[in-house]
Amino acid sequence: MSGSSSTRDDLVRAGVELLDQLPLERILAGVTTAAVAEQAGVTTGSFFHHFRNSSEYTAAVVRSFDRERRFERDAVSDLTDAIQHRRLSEAISAVLVTTWRILADDPQRQADRRGQMHLFAHHRVALPPTDTDPTLSPTPPAPTETVGDVLRDIYRSQVDQITATWQRLLSLGEMRLAEPFDTRRLAVAVHALLLGLEIVHAVDPDAVDDNLFAEATATLAAALSRLDLDPARVMTAAELGQTEATTPQARSGARRRLDTRRRI
Amino acid sequence: MSGSSSTRDDLVRAGVELLDQLPLERILAGVTTAAVAEQAGVTTGSFFHHFRNSSEYTAAVVRSFDRERRFERDAVSDLTDAIQHRRLSEAISAVLVTTWRILADDPQRQADRRGQMHLFAHHRVALPPTDTDPTLSPTPPAPTETVGDVLRDIYRSQVDQITATWQRLLSLGEMRLAEPFDTRRLAVAVHALLLGLEIVHAVDPDAVDDNLFAEATATLAAALSRLDLDPARVMTAAELGQTEATTPQARSGARRRLDTRRRI
Repeated sequence: MSGSSSTRDDLVRAGVELLDQLPLERILAGVTTAAVAEQAGVTTGSFFHHFRNSSEYTAAVVRSFDRERRFERDAVSDLTDAIQHRRLSEAISAVLVTTWRILADDPQRQADRRGQMHLFAHHRVALPPTDTDPTLSPTPPAPTETVGDVLRDIYRSQVDQITATWQRLLSLGEMRLAEPFDTRRLAVAVHALLLGLEIVHAVDPDAVDDNLFAEATATLAAALSRLDLDPARVMTAAELGQTEATTPQARSGARRRLDTRRRI
Repeated sequence: MSGSSSTRDDLVRAGVELLDQLPLERILAGVTTAAVAEQAGVTTGSFFHHFRNSSEYTAAVVRSFDRERRFERDAVSDLTDAIQHRRLSEAISAVLVTTWRILADDPQRQADRRGQMHLFAHHRVALPPTDTDPTLSPTPPAPTETVGDVLRDIYRSQVDQITATWQRLLSLGEMRLAEPFDTRRLAVAVHALLLGLEIVHAVDPDAVDDNLFAEATATLAAALSRLDLDPARVMTAAELGQTEATTPQARSGARRRLDTRRRI
């Protein structure tokens, strides 16, 4: 058996390399068009009415991951409700804790993240060009779009929304961010923190408690700005549970708003 | 064409659902054992000497993602060098900027992250049990391990290392963290921030500049603790470029140390 364990390592390493190089179509190779049609409740004929081949279909699936742009809008509307009868710092804490709870508990959001990370694993793969009518006169070829370009647009849109939220918060409090940060760099950091915490929470729920996102974000913002936030006074989930903005009724209301927007 | 666009949406949604439910083996279905053997430079016979079937091989590939536990060790040794002739806050900034540059530029690290996110997309999938000798007397069945369990162990190990680093920093400065944070919760937040920033940086390099990780981490730590860090005085990459710890020679030295440890 001498040398066997090294060969085994070589084989496993080869698998990791090939996994990384796998063409995107191969990911769906195990899924037949019949299975897709059945899942969608249509005929196989209908499938080929809409997609010329599996390559075109795969590209459409990848480009469909352009969702989940709602949570910051919800956070802002929750904030408007909350700010009526609280200090700004309490309102921000309440919104952040509530936002995290909704995101962490939402099966649709979790499925979106799994799908996005599937795309991330293949972010360097080029997508076939979007369908154009071949009977039209030839147009100059568009620059090649990759899977990562789709993800990049999703992330930029999310950062835009976080930026808008924080700008609104700052204007409410007549505050500005301290050098060297600006609102957009704060939003990039908060977005990355949220993305990372969602991933860690999915595989290790015990690692991320309900308050961590709120505390880290509020602390980050307070340190970078002149907000009237005292990090030690970020409200805990238990404290928030005693207030009306996060009663079960209010939480299910926030979730209902999220669901409604998802259906639109 | 009435109703067609809705059918198309149904088809795409079905694909997203199926993508998420895809058995892990199917990911490697496009990769033949012959291709694996060729990539590893061994014969197909050798493949089946080591793995009974593709299911066992796939599980071995998943479990192999137990790498990349080195960067924090490197950061600590860099810190020890740097702290000889700097203030603590400058040393921390230097280590964080250098760490980020190494991670962001390292193709092996990027491939690891893509592989890990591939696993994350399938984190709920159960792995077949590890190989046991069938001639041995039957043992009680082990609890089912999932792909997510492999990722969770990787993440916990990384958080352990970050915790140890920050505890060392705090003891160097005779400092302690402010309530309600403790060192481990700070480490969870820093780990999640790093994970999120690496993902965003991979698909949108312009969004994350060299200083963002260092500034956000140092700000987070300073706000949560009684460190002598002034967030506005976190050194920029340009400033660090003028010091000896991040000359091209020193950076290639840090990279060389990283490479050496990877080979061990």
